Amino acid sequence: MSLSLAKELNPLNTEPQAESRRLSTPNPKKNPPSKEHEMIVVMEQGASDAQIQHVAQLIRELGLTDHIIKGTERTVIAAIGDDRAKNKENLETVPGVEKVMPVLAPYKMASREVKKERSVVPLGGTLGASAGGKKVCLIAGPCSVESRPQLLNCAQAVKAAGATALRGGAFKPRTSPYAFQGMGEEGLKILAEARDLTGLAVVTEIMAVDQIDLVCKYADVLQVGARNMQNYNLLWAVGDTRKTVLLKRGLSATLEEFMLAAEYIMSKGNPNVILCERGIRTFETYCRNTLPLAIVPEVHRISHLPIVIDPSQGTGHAHLVPDMCKAAIAAGADGLIIEAHDDPEHALTDGAQSITPKTLKEMMVTLRKIATAVDREI
Amino acid sequence: MSLSLAKELNPLNTEPQAESRRLSTPNPKKNPPSKEHEMIVVMEQGASDAQIQHVAQLIRELGLTDHIIKGTERTVIAAIGDDRAKNKENLETVPGVEKVMPVLAPYKMASREVKKERSVVPLGGTLGASAGGKKVCLIAGPCSVESRPQLLNCAQAVKAAGATALRGGAFKPRTSPYAFQGMGEEGLKILAEARDLTGLAVVTEIMAVDQIDLVCKYADVLQVGARNMQNYNLLWAVGDTRKTVLLKRGLSATLEEFMLAAEYIMSKGNPNVILCERGIRTFETYCRNTLPLAIVPEVHRISHLPIVIDPSQGTGHAHLVPDMCKAAIAAGADGLIIEAHDDPEHALTDGAQSITPKTLKEMMVTLRKIATAVDREI
Amino acid sequence: MSLSLAKELNPLNTEPQAESRRLSTPNPKKNPPSKEHEMIVVMEQGASDAQIQHVAQLIRELGLTDHIIKGTERTVIAAIGDDRAKNKENLETVPGVEKVMPVLAPYKMASREVKKERSVVPLGGTLGASAGGKKVCLIAGPCSVESRPQLLNCAQAVKAAGATALRGGAFKPRTSPYAFQGMGEEGLKILAEARDLTGLAVVTEIMAVDQIDLVCKYADVLQVGARNMQNYNLLWAVGDTRKTVLLKRGLSATLEEFMLAAEYIMSKGNPNVILCERGIRTFETYCRNTLPLAIVPEVHRISHLPIVIDPSQGTGHAHLVPDMCKAAIAAGADGLIIEAHDDPEHALTDGAQSITPKTLKEMMVTLRKIATAVDREI
Amino acid sequence: MSLSLAKELNPLNTEPQAESRRLSTPNPKKNPPSKEHEMIVVMEQGASDAQIQHVAQLIRELGLTDHIIKGTERTVIAAIGDDRAKNKENLETVPGVEKVMPVLAPYKMASREVKKERSVVPLGGTLGASAGGKKVCLIAGPCSVESRPQLLNCAQAVKAAGATALRGGAFKPRTSPYAFQGMGEEGLKILAEARDLTGLAVVTEIMAVDQIDLVCKYADVLQVGARNMQNYNLLWAVGDTRKTVLLKRGLSATLEEFMLAAEYIMSKGNPNVILCERGIRTFETYCRNTLPLAIVPEVHRISHLPIVIDPSQGTGHAHLVPDMCKAAIAAGADGLIIEAHDDPEHALTDGAQSITPKTLKEMMVTLRKIATAVDREI
Repeated sequence: MSLSLAKELNPLNTEPQAESRRLSTPNPKKNPPSKEHEMIVVMEQGASDAQIQHVAQLIRELGLTDHIIKGTERTVIAAIGDDRAKNKENLETVPGVEKVMPVLAPYKMASREVKKERSVVPLGGTLGASAGGKKVCLIAGPCSVESRPQLLNCAQAVKAAGATALRGGAFKPRTSPYAFQGMGEEGLKILAEARDLTGLAVVTEIMAVDQIDLVCKYADVLQVGARNMQNYNLLWAVGDTRKTVLLKRGLSATLEEFMLAAEYIMSKGNPNVILCERGIRTFETYCRNTLPLAIVPEVHRISHLPIVIDPSQGTGHAHLVPDMCKAAIAAGADGLIIEAHDDPEHALTDGAQSITPKTLKEMMVTLRKIATAVDREI
Repeated sequence: MSLSLAKELNPLNTEPQAESRRLSTPNPKKNPPSKEHEMIVVMEQGASDAQIQHVAQLIRELGLTDHIIKGTERTVIAAIGDDRAKNKENLETVPGVEKVMPVLAPYKMASREVKKERSVVPLGGTLGASAGGKKVCLIAGPCSVESRPQLLNCAQAVKAAGATALRGGAFKPRTSPYAFQGMGEEGLKILAEARDLTGLAVVTEIMAVDQIDLVCKYADVLQVGARNMQNYNLLWAVGDTRKTVLLKRGLSATLEEFMLAAEYIMSKGNPNVILCERGIRTFETYCRNTLPLAIVPEVHRISHLPIVIDPSQGTGHAHLVPDMCKAAIAAGADGLIIEAHDDPEHALTDGAQSITPKTLKEMMVTLRKIATAVDREI
Repeated sequence: MSLSLAKELNPLNTEPQAESRRLSTPNPKKNPPSKEHEMIVVMEQGASDAQIQHVAQLIRELGLTDHIIKGTERTVIAAIGDDRAKNKENLETVPGVEKVMPVLAPYKMASREVKKERSVVPLGGTLGASAGGKKVCLIAGPCSVESRPQLLNCAQAVKAAGATALRGGAFKPRTSPYAFQGMGEEGLKILAEARDLTGLAVVTEIMAVDQIDLVCKYADVLQVGARNMQNYNLLWAVGDTRKTVLLKRGLSATLEEFMLAAEYIMSKGNPNVILCERGIRTFETYCRNTLPLAIVPEVHRISHLPIVIDPSQGTGHAHLVPDMCKAAIAAGADGLIIEAHDDPEHALTDGAQSITPKTLKEMMVTLRKIATAVDREI
Repeated sequence: MSLSLAKELNPLNTEPQAESRRLSTPNPKKNPPSKEHEMIVVMEQGASDAQIQHVAQLIRELGLTDHIIKGTERTVIAAIGDDRAKNKENLETVPGVEKVMPVLAPYKMASREVKKERSVVPLGGTLGASAGGKKVCLIAGPCSVESRPQLLNCAQAVKAAGATALRGGAFKPRTSPYAFQGMGEEGLKILAEARDLTGLAVVTEIMAVDQIDLVCKYADVLQVGARNMQNYNLLWAVGDTRKTVLLKRGLSATLEEFMLAAEYIMSKGNPNVILCERGIRTFETYCRNTLPLAIVPEVHRISHLPIVIDPSQGTGHAHLVPDMCKAAIAAGADGLIIEAHDDPEHALTDGAQSITPKTLKEMMVTLRKIATAVDREI
């Protein structure tokens, strides 16, 4: 998606708004125009004519057109048209209403309806890394930047294995306040040095709005983690940059919520969003998360954005990673993001789910064959 | 797994017990010997010596050996040894106990510890169908047997596409009592005719103990559906036959519960169990079920039994099926079971998730390449 | 709901069908008439007129009336009317269709639309036990019948605490084939003796169709366990009796599936169904199951059937049971079913979630006050 | 918990760190000392002596003491002692290791082990609002501040009904970027005016670190929403203030993650944390979220912090709110936070789950009786 298309889609927000990024107070008058909301209101059996007419009137108050359809048991009212920031859920509390069913998904810029062709999103670096084209991108590296030698070694090893982008956390979101929180700017500098050395694009997590200038100085791709998928101020802030954003799905986010998080970023004028599935939380216990690969063809059906798979977070166990990499490519994923570490036994974070660069290299032989089978390259 | 191994593992249950199948009253004296149960009991901070000694004594009453380890904050007690049908969870209510953690999985015959090499389970028919060997098996056919011409046409079409087994329901478990419940014996006869015509093995669902003689007369493989995965009387009854059983995972069954359901069948002396993942219930809404493919490498790690994937039930939408078939093969699945229907618009059941034989045939070209990439055939 | 109403609702099935119970082959010609199915078909953006007309025609083939509503972005087609055993999901695969949304719940006899007043379902015994009236029923007892003295003592203790019904399993569904499976008929005899001694109604689980005659001989209420909630042959078989059925919700059953399971029973002419919530499977780990009490007011809104709560299974930990009993009564539950055991440390099954009769008795003082607060008695 | 205790527990962080709040770069050297980590390493069947010794050595490298216990089938190694920021999960990838089981919860300041007596946390205002004492606190008000008259009317109405604190959002986290985002500072001013008028404590959501000074100026209690439960920079920032924090559980957060989020806040020296359960995401569809009330007694068992229940978010439907309020009080909740709106049909946000002040007032009669029954007041 070109910047000019983004401009066309969202003319009010074309310029990076450095100022608004600092003030997270929203300006309600500047909210972008909302998309059409159609819905079906199902009335209770035995709802009175007065109740039906009252609902029809509330629909008209919302700026929508009402279509009343009387069935043998029930009346349903279809509400069609355009609205702006009105709240239709309220109809559910109105006497005589059984339920309200929305007809359309509430996102637009991320939707395939707006842009039929698939977006190819650049990652940066000098190796031509991008996601969404014929070539499947491979992003690999350690969970955390731990030291200069560790990272530089790992960068060279994953490049040799076929990666075009390097992952590595300088700021680490940790469940416990007592766990290692990352090296901060020192880590970012090492990442940038690794890029200079290898040409790999640098992908790193951003956890807070006030880290943006710092992280943008060193990184190519801003990763928004699963825990921050609905941190809307952060989404708006990365939307104000022109860096590519790797947006991870929340552990229990619906696909619609995931698309709306992308929409937050895109609504600020940044079209360069890569979606990333990293597993969802279920009752399963043999894996840390359940990796739902059917999201790959579904995202390709509803959106023009690329989707990459994180089988490390997505399973939580190194022994499950290679087969899930293979499955992801076969399912049509636009890329992989993998945790790789030279010495998982001594990794500071996430050793249990890191594979070694040696395993990565061996696996690549198979991944290339699978990519060919599904008419892709890696 | 040969019958003789089953005999060795479970000497009390080697002969099909036609009689016991009719009486679902268990005979507690004949319960097979249980496997070792080890556990760790974590005491509360500040648990008294008397409480610790009381737990140690209860452990000894269970026939286990106690190992008391005093830490700086807590005491933990490891309980090691062999027991039979004792209930260790009870320890959780004992004063001073914080929690009880089991150490070992409670299944044995389904476990890889008992049999290192992978089991190759025959499906029947004359085309050499089996699951667990180098060749990935393809089981395809309609959700339900609807009529003789429908089934015979479909059987020939899926055979032409590369299937070696035919699926088709004669007894259908339906969520609503008012929905089509299947053709019963008439449907079974048509399935058998299709086998005679094509050589395809016949896989069909069994829903009740009293259907066993009838279904065994016509079918090669008894399918136990997800809703019946913990219908223990049915599991015992199919364990008493020597037919291959295709056991589907329950919608919210843990992997351990799934393995224990297989153990129920195997403990009666029937080693021919094929596991089938058909999707789990989660909060996701874009698919009818979430298909967790990481179960494939995990089952291969913990068990010698083959595992096949049902991407039709596993997604609920025909447009997601082909990519999930590809992903399943890439993940190492031992087979696929797919709903295929000539005319999904008019199918009596599950039209939304059925692909056409034409789609199946086209997809096979890619599946063969992926199988080759992961050193398998299809 | 009187038997005559059941007759009126389902005239084809008024007599207990002892014979059909033995044959689990369904007779498709005798399926009761299905209820009305209305649905909304949402077309894709840009669906052609030909596609829209094709869907309209398929709707008419189903015996429904089509209402085409063209919006600014999309067309939706409402399908209204009556059908019989047709499968509308199929429409989802038709070209140009985005999704299909059902309008109405597919159950009828269990629904409040059919019967506005709340059903009062008798439990049996000589103490006037029933569920659904002003009096909240208390069903208590051990998980399993373990011996005559254990059960008789426990029965007297729970009666003294205020219970009017006795629970106790003679057939136990166990996740492991190696665990204690229950005492069988011997256990049933002890339960009946306890009823003679105390007047308590006897509630016990039935696991298989061939146990029905035996269990009916001794028990007052047939409990269908969570694992068998979709064992349709069993549902039909208990529907053929005139015993009250306590139907437990499956671990991952939706409310609609739960109501349809009740509908299976009621469609055979047995109106005496008590729903039982026993917790659902989620990602939570501090409890064995998550107990969703909001189902109580929701069931009261959509159904006339009583609903009781099982806080023992519903939490899995004895220390959570008393507060969940209090919460259940406050939420409006029609009854409680509680595991109580004199000596949880040595219980053969489910000791971890059993409370002692002493705890039960103490708790009753508070439960009575809460019942009064919500205008009930216990 | 007094400030002095917080000081004692966390001597490095006693002063509000206005500066560090601006810089979200963590300072790894200043991480507070971590708590003891004990674990059990279960070796694979057949693990070699060399593998066992290698694990024992890695345990000693972590600063822990190893205890090797050889069972008949397996060896387990207990690791006991104190460590600092070491990562034990890594052991899972070590050859011969089957699994690693942590023994202790990784939080300390939020834990009941550190402080046996229940904390009473003040809310502010002039009506003596607090959570955790005998009196159950009632926090009520609209989802969003929409206008001055709306809020002032609502404040007076909820006070008349018995509330001691007022909720109302000035910054609204919205799933869609096109939805109403709140009135910002204007809304905060109206909230403060309502407090001056009524004496109610003001509870309002904070979404971003840069809103802290502004929100602290007007509000009494900072609410951290479910979507931000793992926004660690925000948690640290509110931990640096001395305002009471109402911390909502994430939709799919485990109880341990919830406690660790509280620990983030407390580790900065702010002991005034109130936990809030607002429902979890499950497969259920009759409610927007599933409200798991068993968390109330469980939190009381493991923590000294108060816990309040949000039945509005927790169910998503106004008709389920009153019964869930009753159940929450009966379960022992320390407070309720309820969405109330004069005119739900026209509410700008969350109308579907708002009850009217009239309903609130009527319900209070019953809530008072239930509170008395469980030895509380409201």
